[in-house]
Amino acid sequence: MQWTLFQLDDYGPWTTTPHPRREMDLQTLQSRIYATLATGVDSVDGYVFPTRWDNLLAVTNGLDREGHERLQTRVRNRFPVTLSCGVGVDETPATAIADATAALQDAGSAQGDRREALRGSFGEDTGDLTVAHFDVVDATGTYTDRDDAYSAHRTIRRGCDALADEMHERHGALTFFVGGDNAIAVCPAGTTEFGTTIDRVQERTGTHWRVGVGHGATAHEAGMAAKHALEAGRERAEAVVEA
Amino acid sequence: MQWTLFQLDDYGPWTTTPHPRREMDLQTLQSRIYATLATGVDSVDGYVFPTRWDNLLAVTNGLDREGHERLQTRVRNRFPVTLSCGVGVDETPATAIADATAALQDAGSAQGDRREALRGSFGEDTGDLTVAHFDVVDATGTYTDRDDAYSAHRTIRRGCDALADEMHERHGALTFFVGGDNAIAVCPAGTTEFGTTIDRVQERTGTHWRVGVGHGATAHEAGMAAKHALEAGRERAEAVVEA
Amino acid sequence: MQWTLFQLDDYGPWTTTPHPRREMDLQTLQSRIYATLATGVDSVDGYVFPTRWDNLLAVTNGLDREGHERLQTRVRNRFPVTLSCGVGVDETPATAIADATAALQDAGSAQGDRREALRGSFGEDTGDLTVAHFDVVDATGTYTDRDDAYSAHRTIRRGCDALADEMHERHGALTFFVGGDNAIAVCPAGTTEFGTTIDRVQERTGTHWRVGVGHGATAHEAGMAAKHALEAGRERAEAVVEA
Amino acid sequence: MQWTLFQLDDYGPWTTTPHPRREMDLQTLQSRIYATLATGVDSVDGYVFPTRWDNLLAVTNGLDREGHERLQTRVRNRFPVTLSCGVGVDETPATAIADATAALQDAGSAQGDRREALRGSFGEDTGDLTVAHFDVVDATGTYTDRDDAYSAHRTIRRGCDALADEMHERHGALTFFVGGDNAIAVCPAGTTEFGTTIDRVQERTGTHWRVGVGHGATAHEAGMAAKHALEAGRERAEAVVEA
Repeated sequence: MQWTLFQLDDYGPWTTTPHPRREMDLQTLQSRIYATLATGVDSVDGYVFPTRWDNLLAVTNGLDREGHERLQTRVRNRFPVTLSCGVGVDETPATAIADATAALQDAGSAQGDRREALRGSFGEDTGDLTVAHFDVVDATGTYTDRDDAYSAHRTIRRGCDALADEMHERHGALTFFVGGDNAIAVCPAGTTEFGTTIDRVQERTGTHWRVGVGHGATAHEAGMAAKHALEAGRERAEAVVEA
Repeated sequence: MQWTLFQLDDYGPWTTTPHPRREMDLQTLQSRIYATLATGVDSVDGYVFPTRWDNLLAVTNGLDREGHERLQTRVRNRFPVTLSCGVGVDETPATAIADATAALQDAGSAQGDRREALRGSFGEDTGDLTVAHFDVVDATGTYTDRDDAYSAHRTIRRGCDALADEMHERHGALTFFVGGDNAIAVCPAGTTEFGTTIDRVQERTGTHWRVGVGHGATAHEAGMAAKHALEAGRERAEAVVEA
Repeated sequence: MQWTLFQLDDYGPWTTTPHPRREMDLQTLQSRIYATLATGVDSVDGYVFPTRWDNLLAVTNGLDREGHERLQTRVRNRFPVTLSCGVGVDETPATAIADATAALQDAGSAQGDRREALRGSFGEDTGDLTVAHFDVVDATGTYTDRDDAYSAHRTIRRGCDALADEMHERHGALTFFVGGDNAIAVCPAGTTEFGTTIDRVQERTGTHWRVGVGHGATAHEAGMAAKHALEAGRERAEAVVEA
Repeated sequence: MQWTLFQLDDYGPWTTTPHPRREMDLQTLQSRIYATLATGVDSVDGYVFPTRWDNLLAVTNGLDREGHERLQTRVRNRFPVTLSCGVGVDETPATAIADATAALQDAGSAQGDRREALRGSFGEDTGDLTVAHFDVVDATGTYTDRDDAYSAHRTIRRGCDALADEMHERHGALTFFVGGDNAIAVCPAGTTEFGTTIDRVQERTGTHWRVGVGHGATAHEAGMAAKHALEAGRERAEAVVEA
């Protein structure tokens, strides 16, 4: 599958030049840049995750060089900052993003004179994607309606982080918190042992997750199948449902 | 200080009714709701953090009942979902958000029929705020330009999480990742021992942080002082600078 | 009342430098800058109208110098362009905007080196505002559901233009199309003869308008009263209702 | 070429139910819906114009049924209103939009129970598009820097309206104000006599326009050629330049 590292050019220094900028303006800017990329990547049925906000990771199967350039143009035309892209292709997400990162690092530092670099290799078809959509079993009853909101947040993120580490280390999958009590893992085809992953996360953090697994030619297609599988798991009280 | 828990009403079920909704649409929606609240809270020099996206935590000194109602109206008029608010006041952020949460929990579950609840007590002045703005020493050279983007992200978040836990447990402060390699902690007045915190985080995670500490009547004022202090620390190569 | 002319700095040349920019990017940018100003001005219960998009007219009672500077900062922090402001105060809108324009023209041309100018005089209280909210009687049945969409649009805009000219010439009011079949006129206190205006517009253009008139300390307050009056007129089939 | 009429469902009544909604919220909502459609239509190199805001006209060559459905989904997922579409195909824009309108009118009134209708015929290729990009000769020196901002706005819109009427009546072209002193006309292939149009508009309104004309397979391609032609006309002081 094809992954893109979107990186804002020289963003850190920009946020403090000539003086530190208002934090809520920066947060609004970041969330709008994310929304712009999310809409653009959605047009090829891809997924983008905010990650560090100035470094965003995306599944971009079907987004070719020209498509990336158009996103760079869009950012330049709408925002006070510019965007560089590194692109990598591999059957394992962790490898694809490593290739994408290396390609971009070759073009220069994230902080410096580099502007609107676009590097890497664009994908030939590498077969189906697997998306795993996790959520916490009864998060509302267990945490949201019971704990204070900060502790509930920290508990869920701790579970999500354990999930991310398990999936990364054992499968080369990349996992992202997507709001509420939801995490999405983009996995190599043929990833298995989701039940084991869930058990380990429960042991390590006490949080109890459920997962729906889907496959498809694009992140959207696989992800939507995963959402339906997750709904089925919720109805049937099963921890792992694969579509 | 005054904290608000903003909570979308019955949001989880909405995301899957009648069918699961496109993930990038949900992400775009969430980031726009956040941007709307950020702009609204910024108008009283407050801060809001996306947290779980459907549960957002905010420092809202100076935002009275009518101000909260206006934000509820704004969300209702712009988005397909509605917003409830719990408000709490205390000198310790962790206590304020616990009060805010309890007030909202009394109004009904996050998932159910509750709509646009607004509960809690609005603040009399409780004195100055302290904001600590942390960033990672040479994150670009150490991580962004060297590691793959996913690992860099995970490393920085791990450091940030350790920071958050230290600040929460020892000081009752609430800490949030705000993008790049930055974390903002809103602290009780008189919080000290930032050097110890940084040392512990380095021991636990290997990440090396620096901090600027500022004080002020509002989150923006304290936060801006903290940013300037952080810049001073960067120039003088000091780990802790208090404005 | 206080009016502000918001003017993007050197915007025309920017749109074609170094090459003409994508039209949909420009339109998106313009509509977002408008939304940003609308939200900012709304926080003091003012109104802003997109007008020419790079020149926007606003009722800004209660928005002081610092409030204007904050909007300039917000634009600079979020967008690739900057914003200048001219401010004028007068009981007659046409005079206030003329003063606001003259103040800004003194600071330099709209196209050139001028950046983030803020000129003019800020308002002492000049009493109540009058807002007239017009709409077309049965626009849906008469035009939208019957004519082709372009002709319906042109017909309604022609009526709206006639309305604007009548209100400007005879009363010094400023009138803006606000979508659908709606126009909002901000008028000097004590404006009368709305029935005559409506009759003249019908004679000149064949479009049949109705109006609700409201008064208040701010554009929002007067405008909301006008909306309620318009609803009353719709129910009672009266052409002019003053709240 | 293919045109789409985007129409918000039952929008007028929504704006006043249960009470009239804040005007700036409505304006912000409208401009965001427009920006959402502009970005979506831009992905197929089309153009969309805000027109009446609840009725938007778009050149949508290449946007098929599924593409329209995706825009409907996007609006439903992001906003508190829904979107219907009528689609028409003809070599003359005025005819295409008439067909698009008729198709949608058949599905029910703009105000009523109709929701997310999608009607009409999608385009086979009907050859190249012609776009004419007009602007006012030295608008800044003649109007913006000299007249008051409201009068400058009215003068330019009056010129633009005359232009629109000339182009509509004589050529079946659809013309839209796009900000500043710019108007874009989408024309049947083979449209000529732009010099005559400009002369008539000058006679009728005193405003002096220039035009660049471009051709291409999409609105973006033709429009970009027109922009370059307009730049050439500006440099060479020619009133009409065809790419």
